Amino acid sequence: MIETDICIIGAGPVGLFAIFEAGLLKMRCHVVDYLPQVGGQLAEIYPKKPIYDIPGFPIVMAEELVHNLMEQAKPFHPTFTLGERIENIEKQDEHSFILTTHLDTKIHAKVICIAGGLGCFEPRKPAIDNLADYEKNGVEYMVLNPEKFRDKKIVIAGGGDSALDWTMFLADVAQELTMVHRGEMFRGAPDSVHKVKQLAEEGKIKMELNSNVTHLIGNGKLEKVQITHNDGTNKELDADHYLALFGLSPKLGPIAQWGLNIDKNAINVDTHDYSTNIKGIYAIGDINNYAGKLKLILCGFHEAALMVHSASELILGKKPTLKYTTVNGITEF
Amino acid sequence: MIETDICIIGAGPVGLFAIFEAGLLKMRCHVVDYLPQVGGQLAEIYPKKPIYDIPGFPIVMAEELVHNLMEQAKPFHPTFTLGERIENIEKQDEHSFILTTHLDTKIHAKVICIAGGLGCFEPRKPAIDNLADYEKNGVEYMVLNPEKFRDKKIVIAGGGDSALDWTMFLADVAQELTMVHRGEMFRGAPDSVHKVKQLAEEGKIKMELNSNVTHLIGNGKLEKVQITHNDGTNKELDADHYLALFGLSPKLGPIAQWGLNIDKNAINVDTHDYSTNIKGIYAIGDINNYAGKLKLILCGFHEAALMVHSASELILGKKPTLKYTTVNGITEF
Repeated sequence: MIETDICIIGAGPVGLFAIFEAGLLKMRCHVVDYLPQVGGQLAEIYPKKPIYDIPGFPIVMAEELVHNLMEQAKPFHPTFTLGERIENIEKQDEHSFILTTHLDTKIHAKVICIAGGLGCFEPRKPAIDNLADYEKNGVEYMVLNPEKFRDKKIVIAGGGDSALDWTMFLADVAQELTMVHRGEMFRGAPDSVHKVKQLAEEGKIKMELNSNVTHLIGNGKLEKVQITHNDGTNKELDADHYLALFGLSPKLGPIAQWGLNIDKNAINVDTHDYSTNIKGIYAIGDINNYAGKLKLILCGFHEAALMVHSASELILGKKPTLKYTTVNGITEF
Repeated sequence: MIETDICIIGAGPVGLFAIFEAGLLKMRCHVVDYLPQVGGQLAEIYPKKPIYDIPGFPIVMAEELVHNLMEQAKPFHPTFTLGERIENIEKQDEHSFILTTHLDTKIHAKVICIAGGLGCFEPRKPAIDNLADYEKNGVEYMVLNPEKFRDKKIVIAGGGDSALDWTMFLADVAQELTMVHRGEMFRGAPDSVHKVKQLAEEGKIKMELNSNVTHLIGNGKLEKVQITHNDGTNKELDADHYLALFGLSPKLGPIAQWGLNIDKNAINVDTHDYSTNIKGIYAIGDINNYAGKLKLILCGFHEAALMVHSASELILGKKPTLKYTTVNGITEF
């Protein structure tokens, strides 16, 4: 059993900053995330995208912000369970919760802080009869590591920004890249649409418009995809990987079953300390809701600070003194 | 008359970030501060000190943070009135306020955002009969520009961090530096006390313990200070400048007279949008108060974001759409 003061559910930017704020008040954190790495959406969906509204950063790359937040948390030696999802929470008594993941890892925490963002991101999947057969052997719904596609034959399906961005990026990485889109119009940034069309004109990628991937062909491992044109004719394309980039859709998942006061996929909290209706469980960041709520990372930072002060009072039975962090620095533990 | 959408009172970090957040919603800001430069306490009291609890910065120098916040605000071309204090606010009608400074500068704003920190910092002054005679001719209460003291004879009085820090810094700048302290024990960081004593031992500074500056001598311009030792004897020291560093004490000033709901030097606000009891006037940062309030810069950033959304609704009559700032960047105006 993992023992900790605060179990933080969600390793996105807000969850990571909560480690630091908890550390200032001498509380230890264990962080659980379903994704295989820290950073939440920033790492998973847009690591290379710039963010402009983090206070004090006129511009910062999403992955750089995650790196900085990890550095800031480091003196307080957080521990992590990644790639697992909390399925169940059992309240033992005041200040004592047992959390269990889907792989049966157990964590004993004094308080719980849900920093779950928009929930777990699940891909929108295309309707292909034998899709599930190749989900671990050629079918991908997001690009975690572009190097996986180096010198491979890939088929990318989709017509939005994600499909366009990755087509541009992977054009140089893949041996052969075909973009398949059901229509002729793209929903992405005009500049990206222009660049992708140019790549097709220059012969650097192939483009199959008015077409859908309709069947997967292989022998345990993907070898070809069958596409069906809107006129009803079929064609087979060689493919080591089929990237179905139709967007990710957030799902609240098991959180919905914990008896929390939930409205429209968000947990209602009290702005005094971002506590939920269950004493000892807090919710911060995009997953919570209150009058005036804005789903901004910077708001989650504030919520994290107020949350840990309340958690400290709950655990120690007295209000903590506000510590300013200058000159003498941070007291590591 | 200066015309603006939001008049921000206070050019500290929170006021500066409010410019950026307002800009995202296409509102222009004019910022007024009594200090001669932007940055508030960060620039005035501890520009060279590190801060550890700004999210995303494991460490940042106060002056660097101010610089970054100015860069972030730049696309929205804020305007400033510095070195002036708002004395009077007149509410004309809904969304129309006239603000007047002590130098009679007038600003017409649709809404007002008080980001006044702890108020105006006023120095604690020593009891010296003719102190006021030299306030513009040799007596200083804070170090705005250390170069002013290059190759001068200076006397620093005080026994806290500010007196110790500036003694260390100015030891190399001044021609001659004497530190005068009423006791023998210092109230500053042990490391600083050690370094200052070492400077005295090495003869780089002079130290007069158990002594107070009791009289100023000069002819329009300061020439000497008289110190009185605790045993009653007097001594005169040559001095171009007398730095009385006994700390700064924040004063709310004229803000207390505007009909706002004030408790213990802080303005009560509603956490939905950080509005005060007067419609159209908001208060953010250290100057406000609400259940759970923590006087942290990062909390002020959050308050600024919620405040501008409410201000936009007030000015335009409809809720603004939350804009995420990625890839396409900021639309300058």
